[in-house]
Amino acid sequence: MILDKITEKVLHMIDGEGFKQEGAFNLRENGIAVCHGDSEHVKIRKKEDKQGIDIYIDKNTNGETVHIPVVVSASGMTDVVYNDFYIEDGANVNIIAGCGIHNSGCNDARHDGIHTFHIGKDAIVHYEEKHYGEGEGTGARILNPVTDIYVGENSVFTMDTVQIEGVDSTKRETDITMEAGSRLTVTEKLMTHDRQEAVSNMKVIMDGDGSSAQIISRSVAKGESIQTFHPRAIGKTACHAHIQCDSIIMNDAQVRSIPEIDARNVDAQIIHEAAIGRINSEQLLKLETFGLNEEEAEGVIIENFLN
Amino acid sequence: MILDKITEKVLHMIDGEGFKQEGAFNLRENGIAVCHGDSEHVKIRKKEDKQGIDIYIDKNTNGETVHIPVVVSASGMTDVVYNDFYIEDGANVNIIAGCGIHNSGCNDARHDGIHTFHIGKDAIVHYEEKHYGEGEGTGARILNPVTDIYVGENSVFTMDTVQIEGVDSTKRETDITMEAGSRLTVTEKLMTHDRQEAVSNMKVIMDGDGSSAQIISRSVAKGESIQTFHPRAIGKTACHAHIQCDSIIMNDAQVRSIPEIDARNVDAQIIHEAAIGRINSEQLLKLETFGLNEEEAEGVIIENFLN
Repeated sequence: MILDKITEKVLHMIDGEGFKQEGAFNLRENGIAVCHGDSEHVKIRKKEDKQGIDIYIDKNTNGETVHIPVVVSASGMTDVVYNDFYIEDGANVNIIAGCGIHNSGCNDARHDGIHTFHIGKDAIVHYEEKHYGEGEGTGARILNPVTDIYVGENSVFTMDTVQIEGVDSTKRETDITMEAGSRLTVTEKLMTHDRQEAVSNMKVIMDGDGSSAQIISRSVAKGESIQTFHPRAIGKTACHAHIQCDSIIMNDAQVRSIPEIDARNVDAQIIHEAAIGRINSEQLLKLETFGLNEEEAEGVIIENFLN
Repeated sequence: MILDKITEKVLHMIDGEGFKQEGAFNLRENGIAVCHGDSEHVKIRKKEDKQGIDIYIDKNTNGETVHIPVVVSASGMTDVVYNDFYIEDGANVNIIAGCGIHNSGCNDARHDGIHTFHIGKDAIVHYEEKHYGEGEGTGARILNPVTDIYVGENSVFTMDTVQIEGVDSTKRETDITMEAGSRLTVTEKLMTHDRQEAVSNMKVIMDGDGSSAQIISRSVAKGESIQTFHPRAIGKTACHAHIQCDSIIMNDAQVRSIPEIDARNVDAQIIHEAAIGRINSEQLLKLETFGLNEEEAEGVIIENFLN
């Protein structure tokens, strides 16, 4: 189908690989799945009982990418969707989700994506999720993702989440349970500006021997925005976890970080590091001597910090 | 006055410098101030309205040490005491508090020491507090200290707390407010064993420009003991804070660390680091090759870690 210009632009912002109506994909627009396709190994089925889709990824999936973007461009809309991913033993898959809101009206536009991952053994899953807001309206752009992930034995789960701009309010809830030998890497990048608010709660339970988790969170808070992070790592077995949260604070912003590390086994090894501070003034000065003005120099430092 | 052998032994454990009935001191035993003395610059007064003392430290105090130990040796006793420290501008003082419980009975023995520090400008205060329990009784030894500290402009406050052994249950509450240019160093050392429980809550509010705080917490959890740490650093102004929590977990123990760093000013710079893990096996092996058995080697490593 032919997409309108607003949708095209939003898709460009939230799908880094470029959204195409090819292979396995599902495009949800203003609460309706407007187009979708299956591939040999990936089948997408509409849920019967509620909004959302079931995505079946079979064991022979080998490096395929599934695109399931969501666009909300109707001011005043609240879109709640449940997406379930069933990933078979040994599958290797990339999933590109993400949601963009274009709000040109005076009412709030909101999307709550509740994603559940059921991952078998020895699978490799890469999950990417970009959040973005735009539009000249006064209505808020709100994104409240809930992500529940069950990582089976010896599986590898990599999660990249990015919220760069335009989201007035977000509350993220991420729950991850890890079986024996599984590995998790989470990279969270967040920038807030103006009066935006962001809350990110994450709970990682290392339930199986030899599981290991690495969580990296990098954020920039500008304007009068407020950010709160609450990552939790709970080690019930012989396991490793490393959580690192770094934030740059600017203007009148506030950043609060409340990590929790909880070792319930003598062989649980958990490390946490967090730092909040202003932009490095030496780096600023150095860039300014190259002829950049303060704003440009800040932009370069922030871009580097978030990449 | 002549002290009994149990009191002498407990005092030896909680007062590293050696308690003497000289200078400014106050010995509290089983809920009663049994002996006390003043010095030229430090006056100790019994409170009229409730249990406890007011300690007045004048501006000419220059490096003097005040000893105010507490001993509880009566099983079944709950001793609640309020001690207020009034420290004048420019004073330089060492305060050695601490509480030891000898419980040879089957009832719980408990001491709640509520200490409040009112510190003027340009003062230097070193506060030491050791907690210790012993006795063959089945009754619990419980210590719940509350410490409220107001650090005036450009003052320096150093707090060393140690709980090495024998305390079945402890809940520590420490609240610190810091004025401009003040400096804080807190060192907390904690070891729990058997079925002991320890909770330590600490809140540091950096309220004045140029205030800086360093908090170091080191703990060892053995047996089936459970430890919970909740240090909070709140930066409201241009300030620095560094929190570091390291824990060694052994046997079936559990350690939970929930730090909170909260930056409410662009010039607040706050860093947190925490690690929980088992004893370094390479260090163990090395000591064992020198002829130490496993228990001895563990003892050496723990002692080094806590010192």
